[in-house]
This record gives sequence, C-alpha cells and structure tokens, in this order.
Amino acid sequence: MTKARLEAFSDGVIAILITIMVLELHVPHDVTWSALGPLVPIFLTYVLSFVFVGIYWNNHHHMLHAADRINGKVLWANLHLLFWLSLIPFVTGWLGQNHVAPNPSAAYGIVMLMAAIAYYILAHTLVAAQGPDSRLARAMGGDRKGKVSVVLWAIGIGLAFLNPWLAVAVYVGVALMWLVPDRRIETHAPARSA
Amino acid sequence: MTKARLEAFSDGVIAILITIMVLELHVPHDVTWSALGPLVPIFLTYVLSFVFVGIYWNNHHHMLHAADRINGKVLWANLHLLFWLSLIPFVTGWLGQNHVAPNPSAAYGIVMLMAAIAYYILAHTLVAAQGPDSRLARAMGGDRKGKVSVVLWAIGIGLAFLNPWLAVAVYVGVALMWLVPDRRIETHAPARSA
Amino acid sequence: MTKARLEAFSDGVIAILITIMVLELHVPHDVTWSALGPLVPIFLTYVLSFVFVGIYWNNHHHMLHAADRINGKVLWANLHLLFWLSLIPFVTGWLGQNHVAPNPSAAYGIVMLMAAIAYYILAHTLVAAQGPDSRLARAMGGDRKGKVSVVLWAIGIGLAFLNPWLAVAVYVGVALMWLVPDRRIETHAPARSA
Amino acid sequence: MTKARLEAFSDGVIAILITIMVLELHVPHDVTWSALGPLVPIFLTYVLSFVFVGIYWNNHHHMLHAADRINGKVLWANLHLLFWLSLIPFVTGWLGQNHVAPNPSAAYGIVMLMAAIAYYILAHTLVAAQGPDSRLARAMGGDRKGKVSVVLWAIGIGLAFLNPWLAVAVYVGVALMWLVPDRRIETHAPARSA
Repeated sequence: MTKARLEAFSDGVIAILITIMVLELHVPHDVTWSALGPLVPIFLTYVLSFVFVGIYWNNHHHMLHAADRINGKVLWANLHLLFWLSLIPFVTGWLGQNHVAPNPSAAYGIVMLMAAIAYYILAHTLVAAQGPDSRLARAMGGDRKGKVSVVLWAIGIGLAFLNPWLAVAVYVGVALMWLVPDRRIETHAPARSA
Repeated sequence: MTKARLEAFSDGVIAILITIMVLELHVPHDVTWSALGPLVPIFLTYVLSFVFVGIYWNNHHHMLHAADRINGKVLWANLHLLFWLSLIPFVTGWLGQNHVAPNPSAAYGIVMLMAAIAYYILAHTLVAAQGPDSRLARAMGGDRKGKVSVVLWAIGIGLAFLNPWLAVAVYVGVALMWLVPDRRIETHAPARSA
Repeated sequence: MTKARLEAFSDGVIAILITIMVLELHVPHDVTWSALGPLVPIFLTYVLSFVFVGIYWNNHHHMLHAADRINGKVLWANLHLLFWLSLIPFVTGWLGQNHVAPNPSAAYGIVMLMAAIAYYILAHTLVAAQGPDSRLARAMGGDRKGKVSVVLWAIGIGLAFLNPWLAVAVYVGVALMWLVPDRRIETHAPARSA
Repeated sequence: MTKARLEAFSDGVIAILITIMVLELHVPHDVTWSALGPLVPIFLTYVLSFVFVGIYWNNHHHMLHAADRINGKVLWANLHLLFWLSLIPFVTGWLGQNHVAPNPSAAYGIVMLMAAIAYYILAHTLVAAQGPDSRLARAMGGDRKGKVSVVLWAIGIGLAFLNPWLAVAVYVGVALMWLVPDRRIETHAPARSA
C-alpha cells in the first residue's frame, strides 16, 4: 500500500514532466513546412529528454518492484529525485532554444548529474531499508551502470565548454547505455517483474 | 502490480494530454458571442482529438486488461506509443489555428499514423509476452481494425495535399470506425472485462 | 481492476482541471495589495468552479463505489462527462475575466448543464450495467437531485440574459444543494463507503 | 478502496502543483550564465515551496496510512486542504518575482497558514471518523507540531510587514521542523508504515 502510493505520486510527477516539455513546442502561426524549421532543435532535445525520463521511469519501476519495505528516508530520497527531474523541462528548453550552446549544454548535464546522484542515493536508501540479504540488494549488485553514468555526466559537463556537441554526444551515449533494460533486476525477479 | 503501474502512468500522460489541448482554447477578452467565432475550428479539432485520445485510452484499457504478463520490451513499446500521443496537442493546435490547411492536416495524419503504428507494435509486443495460446492472442485475432486504420491514415496524409477537407473526412471516418467498442476482446473475456 | 482504472483516469483529468483553473490567476508584477484587486472576480469564479469540480469528484466517487460492473458504454459515458468537465476552465476564465457579463454567465451555465446531463447519462448507463435489483439502482432511486440540477442550470442560463448576477445566484444554489453529501448512496452502503 | 481513491486524487493534485511551480522558471533567451541571475530568487522560492509540498505529501501519506475509515466529511476536508495547496504556485510566483517584498511574503504566509489550518481540520475529521481508541488517534496524540506551525505561520505573517526576510526565516524554520519525519505515526504503526 505504501509502495503503491510512492509509485503513483512519482508516476504523476513524471507524466506531467513529459507533457510540460511538449509545451515548449509552440504551435507556429504559419502553415509552411519551413515554419516548423525553428522547432527542429527543440523537438530533438524533447526526444532526448523524453528518453531520459522514460529511462528513469523504467528503472524506478524495476527498482521499486524489487523492494518490499519503504520508510520515511525513502520517501524523501524519492522527493529529492523528483526535484531534480522537475528541472529537466527547464534545461531542455534552454538547450533546445539555443541550438546547443555551451552554457545550456552544461546546465543540462548538471541537472542530469544531480538526478543521477539522487537516483543513486534513492537506490542505496532503498537497499538499506530492505537489509543486506534482500532480493533488491542482490539485484542491484555493485550498481556499475549508476556509477558509470555519474562519471559520464561529469565528463559531459566539462566537454560542454570545449564543444557542446561533444557533450551532447556523451549524453546520447548515456541514454543508449540505459536503453538496454536493467537485466540485473529482471533476472533476479523474473516471475514477478517480467 | 507491474501492470497496474504501467496503466497508471499511461493514464496520467493521457489525462494530461487531453487537458493540454484545452489550453489552446484561449479565453477571449471580449464578451460577445462573436468573440467565440475564431475558437470554433480550434474547438472542433479539440473534439476530434479528444475522441481519438479517448479511443486510445479505451483500447489500451481493454488490451492491457486481457494481458497477464509485462516485460521490459512492453514498457518501452508503451513509452513509444505515449511519445507519439504526446505530439497530438501540437498538431491539433496547428490544424485548429489554421482552418484545415494542407500541411497541418498532413502533419496531423502523420502523428496519428505514427501513433497507430506504435499501438500496433505495442499490441504485438504484448501478445508475444503472453504466448501464442494466450487469451490476448485469441482476442486480438488478425487485428484487422489496426491494419485498416494504418492504411486510412496513410491515405488521409496523401489526400491532405489534394484537399485538406477530404483528409479530415477520412480522419473522422477512422474515429467512427473505432468508436464501436472492440467487441473482440470484450467477447473473449466477458466475465472480467465487461 | 477495470473500475480502478476508470477511477484513476477520471481522477487524473479532474485533478488537472482544478490546477489548470489556478493558472488563470496570473501573478501580478506589482507588490501592492491593490495589484490583487483585478484578480478578485477570477478568484471567486475559481472558488465556485473548484466547488463544482469537487462535487463531481465526490459524487463520481460514491457512485462508482456502489458499482460492481463496468462495460464499454460506461467507459464512453465517463469520457463524455470528462469532455464537458474539461471545458470548465475555459468558461470559468471567460466569466472571471469579465466580471459576470451576460454571455459568459450563460456559457458557464451551458457547459455546466451539459456536464449535468452527461453525469445523468453516466449514472443511468452504470445502473443499466448493474441490473435493476443492484445496490446502485436502489441507492440512486429516482435521482431527484440530478433532475433538479438540470432544471436549475437551464433556468440559470435563461436568467443570465436578464441579469447575470441572478444566474450566478442560481449556480451558487446548485452548489449548496450538492454540498450536502449524497446520503442515499452512503446510507445504502454504509459499511463500505463510510 | 475508498481510501485508495482519496490518496490517488490528492497525489494527482499535489504532483501537478509541484510541476506548475516549475513553469514560473521561464527559459531565458540568452545563453549567458548571467541570464539565469533573475531566476535565482524564483528558484529559491520554488525550492522552499517544493519542500513544503513534499512535507504535506509525506504527512498526508503517513496520516492516511494509519486511517481505516473514510466518510463524506473527510472527502470535503481533504478537498479544502487541496484548495489552499492549489494557491501555493500563485503566492510562490508572487514572492519569487518580487525578491521578498512585504506583501508577497505575507500572502505566502497567509496561504500556508490556511493550508496548515485545513490540514489540522482534516486530521481531526479523520480521527473523529476512526473513533477515540483508534490507531490514528493514539498516533496523532496532541498534534503539537500541527499547533506550533499554525502559530509560527501567524508570527511570520506579522513579521513580513516589519522585515520580509524575518518572515522567510520563520518559514524556513517551519520547514526544518517538519523535515524530521513524523515519528509519532511511524512508531505506532511500524510494521505497515515503515
């Protein structure tokens, strides 16, 4: 019951974030295809952020599915994650409206880095609540992917000031790395999760 | 449990899409009935898109109701469908503000075609997850309606460049075809779905 | 399960409608109390519409709680109700920005009348799905309140053209009539609903 | 079942409120870091309000978790709370755009005071519905924190006219007081809530 509500609230926030990003795609007043031209970078950053939000939703889903116990610390670690996710529409808009300039690219990486750290904290708070021998603890293992993405986001932020397109390339790489579903948890809980 | 969360997240996104479309109906500053005049085409395209979103919600509901197993591929196929649905407010606004011009009519059809294809992919991913002898597999059958609507959307896109009103007529036809509830699934699972 | 999703989707739409209405309260740039002055009629119409949306949520909640069977017709009757509810932010904004002028007052009543009719249709579709001897059928009885409010909304629309304040007075009367919780259903299902 | 829907609806409204506040962070057209400068006070008030909304969600969660019975009065007491919470984005925006001026600081406190009173009413309505010997009644005890925060909000409103920064300091103090999770309820219901 408690877990259901944590999931429902997170789903609500994540669903709204996705749709808020769509609002950045302002309807053009002209009916020519070229009127859609200025929207292309906004659309592409929307796709990128949609994929990241989808990854978070997917991983959040799998992780909570493998959890049995929720406590007050988990609720706040989850709110902390939602806080950083809530800033994604802002940095997505800043990046998309400015055709991949250095500062917006770095800002995008900073918010994503903070979200990755917040997810890491949530994962460890959840594992602590389950106990060391829990199904979730075994499933998470060393959380290599989580650590690698924190490093990649940090690298991307640095690259943004050299060449923002390099930063975006790193960000796309992070997305590709996560698009492979988290086999660890699915494998350890096949009967219930799959 | 897993299915419940997939449904809840989809419901959240779909509910927000419907209400985002209402925001295109800007409150006029004048109090005359004629001040509502320019809103009429926006209102009518809102009605059309509301019906389509309602059809998706209804079919999604019936289809998932008949499904017992969810896996990682289903989660992503569902996110893919939500992505195309999330673009409906944009093309609805473009169509409504421009009184059925060729390009917006075609754009509307393109997004709807992609959503129809995404739904088709989701349906087949779900059936594959249930196994060939599953209740859902029997209920889906050949999915004739799904195939017909993909063809109709493609025809509508072509017609948009000849006469956008013909395209809209085809789109209304697709809506009418789907407004008949999907008897296939209701019939095969009467005790639980109906 | 089916009922749960119908409720969840309706809750999502209704929750968003409430918060969309708040967006009409534009943050003033000035810091004087008098800068809030022009917002007073917008605030009061927000309160009125919040109460109506709350009434709909409450009655919807009680009615579905007493229902055991959902079918395809109920899903569409529910979407039809949500459609008219989705127009409440628009007419609320038109009424609030124009200090109770005749046309916006009438438009408010028209949308509310259509919502009341849609609720009536939903109630009867639900009762039909349960069967004549069902708990819901007994609880609904003659649905006197539902019929009275349809009549009151119609009267209010007519009065709007004579004196819009009279119309608003009738609308407030409808709200007061419904603020008394629907004892019929609570009485017939005390152990589960109360 | 009834409780689940009350929770789901509240979650929906609260999730949307959080994300509506983010919309106040308008994407700047410039790509310099200094373009973010004017957003700093808006960001800080967003953080403050995010924390308060998170506190309400957390406490609401714990309180309803310990409740077994819901009645019509609880539904309206809950809607009353949601009404005041729905005004938080407005006062947050007014405060943030005006760099902590007296009137917006007082308005922020007034809405928060009303929300605190509404929560207090909801808590007592819920306890009344459970009966004097209930788990919730024991867990709530004298509700000292609830009473203290009502007093602190009132003090903050008064201080806003002397020095708005003092008011904000009091508001931050209220947040810190609540950030400590409500041990009372968790302690009395460890097996289910924690």
